[in-house]
Amino acid sequence: MSEVYAARRARLRERCHAGGSAAALVTRPANVRYLAGASPRGAALLLARHEDILLCQSPPGDQPYEGRLDEALRVQVLSQPSGGDPAVAAADLAQSQGADSLAVEEHHLTVARHRALASVAPRLRLRDLGNAVEQLRVVKDEEEISLLRIGAEIADQALGELLESILVGRTERHLALELERRLVDHGADGPAFPTSVATGPNAGRRGHRPTDRRVEEGDFLSVCLGASYRGYRCELGRTFVIGTSPADWQIQLYDLVFAAQRAGREALVPGVACRDVDRAARQVLEAAGFGEHLTPLTGHGVGLENDEDPQLSPSAMGKLDACVPVTIEPGVHIPGRGGVRIDDTLVVRPEADGGPELLTITTKELLAL
Amino acid sequence: MSEVYAARRARLRERCHAGGSAAALVTRPANVRYLAGASPRGAALLLARHEDILLCQSPPGDQPYEGRLDEALRVQVLSQPSGGDPAVAAADLAQSQGADSLAVEEHHLTVARHRALASVAPRLRLRDLGNAVEQLRVVKDEEEISLLRIGAEIADQALGELLESILVGRTERHLALELERRLVDHGADGPAFPTSVATGPNAGRRGHRPTDRRVEEGDFLSVCLGASYRGYRCELGRTFVIGTSPADWQIQLYDLVFAAQRAGREALVPGVACRDVDRAARQVLEAAGFGEHLTPLTGHGVGLENDEDPQLSPSAMGKLDACVPVTIEPGVHIPGRGGVRIDDTLVVRPEADGGPELLTITTKELLAL
Repeated sequence: MSEVYAARRARLRERCHAGGSAAALVTRPANVRYLAGASPRGAALLLARHEDILLCQSPPGDQPYEGRLDEALRVQVLSQPSGGDPAVAAADLAQSQGADSLAVEEHHLTVARHRALASVAPRLRLRDLGNAVEQLRVVKDEEEISLLRIGAEIADQALGELLESILVGRTERHLALELERRLVDHGADGPAFPTSVATGPNAGRRGHRPTDRRVEEGDFLSVCLGASYRGYRCELGRTFVIGTSPADWQIQLYDLVFAAQRAGREALVPGVACRDVDRAARQVLEAAGFGEHLTPLTGHGVGLENDEDPQLSPSAMGKLDACVPVTIEPGVHIPGRGGVRIDDTLVVRPEADGGPELLTITTKELLAL
Repeated sequence: MSEVYAARRARLRERCHAGGSAAALVTRPANVRYLAGASPRGAALLLARHEDILLCQSPPGDQPYEGRLDEALRVQVLSQPSGGDPAVAAADLAQSQGADSLAVEEHHLTVARHRALASVAPRLRLRDLGNAVEQLRVVKDEEEISLLRIGAEIADQALGELLESILVGRTERHLALELERRLVDHGADGPAFPTSVATGPNAGRRGHRPTDRRVEEGDFLSVCLGASYRGYRCELGRTFVIGTSPADWQIQLYDLVFAAQRAGREALVPGVACRDVDRAARQVLEAAGFGEHLTPLTGHGVGLENDEDPQLSPSAMGKLDACVPVTIEPGVHIPGRGGVRIDDTLVVRPEADGGPELLTITTKELLAL
C-alpha cells in the first residue's frame, strides 16, 4: 500500500507546485488518512520540499480500523506534556527548511490556529490549498471500492437480521442501537454515521435522529444505516410497512419514491452532469406534487467520509466520472403522516462494464413486516 | 428555563460591550446550546443590538436530548434548498441592523467561513469573542449539576449491570457496545464520549479505543464510560481484575493509583489552584517512579462537552470555584503489561456543604470478577 499513498502525495505535490507553493500542510483528518494511511488525532501532514512528515501528539495506533500508517512516512511525535499543535510545529519546520510559502486547508483550520501558524512562521506566505485533497479523493481506485463493497455487505447483513426479529413495540433508539451492534458483529469498524430509524410520522425524514417512539401496526418504518469498513463509509436506506398489508396511500407513495430512485440510478453513466442525476430523481417527485418537501440533495459521494463530494443537487456543478461511488436517496416526507426514503450506494461504471454497480443489495420491494 | 437562557445571554452581552463590540455571533454548538437551549445543526446565534436571533438551516427538533429551544428566542430558518451558512446570514443581518463590529468565535470559525463573513458584511469590524462563552460555562447552576447527577447514576447502573455478566472471552468492542446500549436503556441521550474498554496490556490507557482483544483470566480490565443526559456529560472510570485473585503487582499498582486519585479528590476545595489538584494526584505516582508514563491531564471539567475547562495539569492556570464539576482520573499504563485508571466526576463544594460531591458512586475497591 505504501506506493499508493506515495502516489497520492505526489499528485497533490504536483498541484501545489502548479499553484505556486513548494510546501503543503494537510490537517483535515480524512485528507490526512487518504494521504498517509492513518490520521492519529490532531495529526498534521507536511509535504515539504524534500520529505513528507506526519506530525502528531501521540504515536499512531495499530488497529486496522484506525488505518495503517504508510511505513515510508517519517513520523514526528511532539513531546508530552507540553505537546502543542502539530500544525503549528509543521509550519515552524517548513520555515526552518527554507520554504517561502505553505498551502493550508483554510476550510478546515480555524482562524485562531491559522494565526498561530502565521505567528510561529512569519516568513512563510500562507496560501489556501482549497479542496485539492477532496478533489483527489472523488475518483476511487479498485481497492477503495472493494472496501466500500465489504461495508455494504455488512450493512445488508445487519439490516436483514433486524427484519427477522419482532419490531412492533420497540423504540427507534433501540432498533438503531441493535443495528449498530450488528454492524460491529459483522466486522465493521463501527457505524458510518449515526444510524437513523424513523417510524410512523417520522418515517422518511432524512437524517432523523431516533426517538423513544415505538413501532406500531400500520407504520411506515424507514431505516438508514452504513458500515465503516477500514475507514470507508457506505450508506443503505430502506422503508418498510409494519403489519399485514400496507394502505393504498402507502403503496402509492412507495411506488413513487421507488420510481424516482430508479430514475436516479439509471442516470448514473460516466460523464453525466451531477445536476442531471439529481433532476432525474427529483422530477418524478415534483411531477407528483411533492416539490416543496424535498431535501436539497438526492445523493452524494461516499468514501472516507459519509457525505463527501460530489453532491447531487439542482445547483451542483461538474460531472460524474467512472469509479465514483455515490448514494441515490430520494425521499418524501409528509408532515404528520410519515414518508418513504430509498437509499443505495452505487459506483459509476461504463455501460461496457455492466453499468452502475449496486453495492447495497437489500431488496427494494415494499416489505410488510 | 427561558429566564435562565436570557440571563446567560445578558451576561455574555455585558462582556461584549465591555470588549467594545455591540454584537456577538456564537457558532460553537455547545455554546449555542448553552445560550439558546438547543443547537440545531449548523445554527448560529446572533446577539444583536435589540434582539437575539437563532439562524439555522432547518427548524429545531423537538427531542429532549437535542435540547429545548428557548421559546423567547426569535428563530430564522434559512430557506431550502439554497440555504447557505447561518453564520454568514447572521453577519449580513448584523450589518443591515447598523452594527459596526461583531465578535466571533475565532477558535471555532474556519478561515474560509471567516472570510465569507467579512465578504458579505464588509462594513462590519470582525473581532474575536475568544472563549467568553466557555468561561461562562465553567461554574454550573444547580439545574445543570442535577442533570450531571442523573447522568452519573445512569453510568453507575450501566457499569454495575455489566459487572454481573460473564466477561471472560468477550471482546473489548462488544463490552463497549453493551455498555452504550445499557446507557440508553437507562435513559441516557447516548454515550457522553466513545466508551473505552481496555483489557490486559491495553488496560489503563487513557482514551483507549476498544479492539477485538478478548478478556482473559488474570487481565486488568479498565472501563471508562459516561452518559449524556439532556446534553450534560459525566465520566466514570474503573479498573478491575479478571479471575479469582489479583497478582501482587496488580494489587500494588491498584493501591498506588487509588491513593493518587484520593489525593486528587481531597484537594478539591473552592479556591484551590487547578495545578495544585493535578500535583496532589501526580506526585503520588511520580514518587513511585511512574513520572514518565503519565498523561498530561489528571482531570478536566465536564458539562455540555466531555472535555471542557478547567484542565487539571501541571501548566494549568486559574482556580476552581464552588459548583465546578471536574473529573479526577489519574492512571498508570505500563507498556506491555497494562495498568490502572480510576476516574470520578465530582463537584467542588465548600467544606460547610460537606466538601466535594461525588457523582459517580461505583465502588473503588479492587474487584476480582
